[in-house]
Parts: sequence; structure tokens; C-alpha cells
Amino acid sequence: MKLASFLINGRSCFGLVEDDHAYDLSVLFPDTPDLKTLLADASKISVIKAKLASAPFYSFDEIQLLPVIPNPEKIICVGLNYESHRLETGMPEMAHPVLFTRFSSTQVAHGAPIVRPNVSEKLDFEGELAVIIGQSGRHITRENAFLHVAGYACYNDASIRDWQMHTGQFTPGKNFDHTGAFGPWMVTPDEIENLESQTVTTRLNGAQVQHAPFSDLIFDIPALVEYISTFCTLVAGDIIVTGTPGGVGVKRKPRLYMKPGDVIEVEISGIGVLSNPITKER
Amino acid sequence: MKLASFLINGRSCFGLVEDDHAYDLSVLFPDTPDLKTLLADASKISVIKAKLASAPFYSFDEIQLLPVIPNPEKIICVGLNYESHRLETGMPEMAHPVLFTRFSSTQVAHGAPIVRPNVSEKLDFEGELAVIIGQSGRHITRENAFLHVAGYACYNDASIRDWQMHTGQFTPGKNFDHTGAFGPWMVTPDEIENLESQTVTTRLNGAQVQHAPFSDLIFDIPALVEYISTFCTLVAGDIIVTGTPGGVGVKRKPRLYMKPGDVIEVEISGIGVLSNPITKER
Repeated sequence: MKLASFLINGRSCFGLVEDDHAYDLSVLFPDTPDLKTLLADASKISVIKAKLASAPFYSFDEIQLLPVIPNPEKIICVGLNYESHRLETGMPEMAHPVLFTRFSSTQVAHGAPIVRPNVSEKLDFEGELAVIIGQSGRHITRENAFLHVAGYACYNDASIRDWQMHTGQFTPGKNFDHTGAFGPWMVTPDEIENLESQTVTTRLNGAQVQHAPFSDLIFDIPALVEYISTFCTLVAGDIIVTGTPGGVGVKRKPRLYMKPGDVIEVEISGIGVLSNPITKER
Repeated sequence: MKLASFLINGRSCFGLVEDDHAYDLSVLFPDTPDLKTLLADASKISVIKAKLASAPFYSFDEIQLLPVIPNPEKIICVGLNYESHRLETGMPEMAHPVLFTRFSSTQVAHGAPIVRPNVSEKLDFEGELAVIIGQSGRHITRENAFLHVAGYACYNDASIRDWQMHTGQFTPGKNFDHTGAFGPWMVTPDEIENLESQTVTTRLNGAQVQHAPFSDLIFDIPALVEYISTFCTLVAGDIIVTGTPGGVGVKRKPRLYMKPGDVIEVEISGIGVLSNPITKER
């Protein structure tokens, strides 16, 4: 299933996406306020298809997509998790994943603009696989990790490079308003064959700038779930943004930053294409 | 005014604290779900005292305190913001504040245990001043910064030092469950005379381990509000945890970590005392 969050006439909903339309599942689960709450309950997920005939549906031009999970408790991003990106940054090999965070308020939906701020022109792309948590847990072993994964989506962890490097902590450059693109939808694990062989591709104005298979991840999904859940409880709707492959703009010669008027796409095979225009801050 | 969040018979409330009792303001503002929403509305803050006579009140043993803001959108912590702490860490002077983040799910109330995890014995204290945002804003100038501050509280940014240093990013060591102590209440700015001359003091089992006046802050509150709001919109209930002075356990010889059975207190003059026992993870 493809699941998404969206507005219908200004009302916040969640639903199932098929071809060019979306079913409003909020109507079927009136006690469920949002998609992350639905993901917490496997018994609801398992009956969606059986109940679908009674859900109202809308064409894509009647809905306005939101970030897949607009209100996660946690967004945990992984740095330097592809060898190709680690090498281009010149950073040493790490015994542990490099983790930083993004505030949910920085997220934008598929189709919504990523905003280049007035204080910097160093707006860079980072195409990534987002893992969305379903069943909550702490001290999850790598063997059990996939039991806690509700699905996958495309993420663009767009970064303001000079602000990311103001100090040793990445926080400012990873938390500009309107820079975390997340969508268009998430895909449940049952619909993805052999995730390791799927790929992430980033295109700037149609030209490929990043491409890698998920088999290239240094810390794979079970390793990330195990490590993160050692320190905190992962809950439904939490997002692990798994890292970006080589090819980022800041490490190119000449450097290649995104500018107003550009279009940036993140495609994950078997999942979909996340596309966002770049605009300037007003 | 002293404002707090608490449970009354399991119901989540917010209210005003006086001496040994608390007024339930939730009853006066039934359309206001929580304290952060109240802080967004200066017109409500301004009428609290006039309406207080009609609010039910409870003695302290009838309420269970929560973290002052249990559900902030953002917790932004500042590292190395006192010269005494910067020097003990051996870190260079910085042109910008060092910012990292804490998830709201890691917070504990006054009186609740800070939990030492099973994976590490390196649980350290960090007594700090928390600044709580009221009126939201982006691109706030230092001249206008205090217009956006709703109040102040004590914070203990308890840290797992080895996990903080697993990589260059502090995230894991600053985000163990049950480590961010925040309370007992916040105090509105009108009740604090000359904030710069007030002090933060940390005591472990009654012995003073940290002490500094806020005039020692390297980046003062206006500088922090200006810098942070350059990249993101600060909203009501957001917390800026302004940094810890010298004296942390990891830099002492011999090292001084907190262990189960200890009691750690953070006192801020003019605000109050935040006290937490240390327990071990079950």
C-alpha cells in the first residue's frame, strides 16, 4: 500500500494512494487522528484493503499532499552512511552512525517549494531513503528491527552548507524552515521486493547528480534501528533518514548548489518520485 | 507568576503555582489544551491574575508535576556557552553558538528519576537556564528578543558522555530516555530582577558542583534568539537550553558521574530548585 497525509478542503486527512486518486481513510478510522497513529496499530493496517470500498476517494487535483508524517515525534538523520559520500567528505570511518536531527516544522510536502534562505546561497540536495517506524520499541535487536518498520519513503535532507559547518554540530544547517522534503507517500514493506537492490537517484533539473543502491549503506536499517533504540524509544511515525550517497553539490568542482527556479527530484525505485521546486525566501 | 504543567487525577492540566498549592488554569481557559498554547496568547497571560479567584486549587500533594512544557515543538540546547566550561573541554572559541537538540520524549519532571542506562555509567549533570518562547517569530533581532520570551526555568541536560562522543555529533548522548529534567515551574520575566546577576548552581548529593552567574554566558539570550530564529521560526513553548558552566563530572579528576541513589539539584536564584533522584534502568 501507498499511504499518505493530505488536506481535503483544508481538513487534515490520511489515506491510501492508487494511480491518480486517494482514498480518505480518516473516515474509516474516526478515532485515529493522523497517519502516525494509524501506523501504531497493525490491526488497523491489516484491514485497510478489506474496508477500502467504503472509503470516499478523491482525484489528485482535489487533495493537497502534506509531508508523509507531518508531525513525527522524532526525525533522526544519519550522516556519512554511504562510502561514496564519506570518501568525498574526507571523514574517517566511524564505529557508530553519525546522527543528527531535524525538527518536524522544517518539513515540506511533495510539490511544495524548498526555500533558499536570504542568508546563504549554499543550499544543497541530499536524496535519501526514509524509514518510518510502526510498532514502538526500545532495545530492538537487529534481528527484530524490520518488525518495527511501517514503510519507506523518499526524503530530501536539503542542507545549508555554511550554516551546517558554523560549529561541529550540524543543527543550524539542517534545520532551516522549508528544507526537509518528504513524500509523496510511504510504501509498506510488503510491496517492496528486495530493498537492498533498490536505488536512490537524485536529479537536479533532470540531470542525475546522485545514484546508489541501498546495499551501499554502511549502517543498514537493522543496525540503525538497534543503535538508535538503545538510547531512545522509537515510536510510530518516527523517521530515520538513512543518509545520502556521494555526489552532493558542496563536494563538486565547480560546486553545484540549488537556486530559485530549479527543480530537485529524489526517486527511489519501487517507491516513487519526490519533486520540489526551489524558491527564494520572501 | 510561576506557571507549571501537571496531572490532577491523571488529567493533564496547566496552572499557576503559589507557595504550596497550584491553581488549575485549564478550567479558566477551556479552549487552551496546554501551557505552550497559553504562552502563545499574551492576552490570556495578562488576565490570569484577575481570574485567579475563580480557579480551583490543589495542594502540591494532590498534583503530579510534568516537565514545564511536556510537548515542545523544539528543544534547542547550547554547548560550550560559559568560558569556564569551554576552557575545561579544551575547545576553541567559536564565532557561532554550538547547537544540538533534545527530543521532548527524553524529558522528566521535577522529582521524577533521571535514569542511568544499562549501557553506560557515564551519566553526567549539566545545570542550565531554560528560556521558554512565548510569541512566535522568525528573524527576530537582538533588540526585540525579550519580546518573545515567556519565561525561565531550571534544566538539567543530563548527558551520557561516551555516547555523546561516539561521533562528532552529540545526538545519542543527549537523547537517552529520562535524562532531560525540566522544572519545577517557569517564572515569567516580570518577576525576575536583573537576570544577568542571577546564578545557576548544581548540587550533587548536597555538594555544590557548578555555580555561575548568567552574566558569564558567552552568547547571551538576545544573541541566541537572533541566531536561532535566522534559520527557524521560534514558536510558543520552544525551549532554548542556554548551556552549562564549568564543573561537569567528565572533566573532574577523578571523574564524578551520577549513580543510582544520588540526588541532583539545579537551583536558579529567583526561579527555584529542580531536584531529581538517579535510578538505574530496569
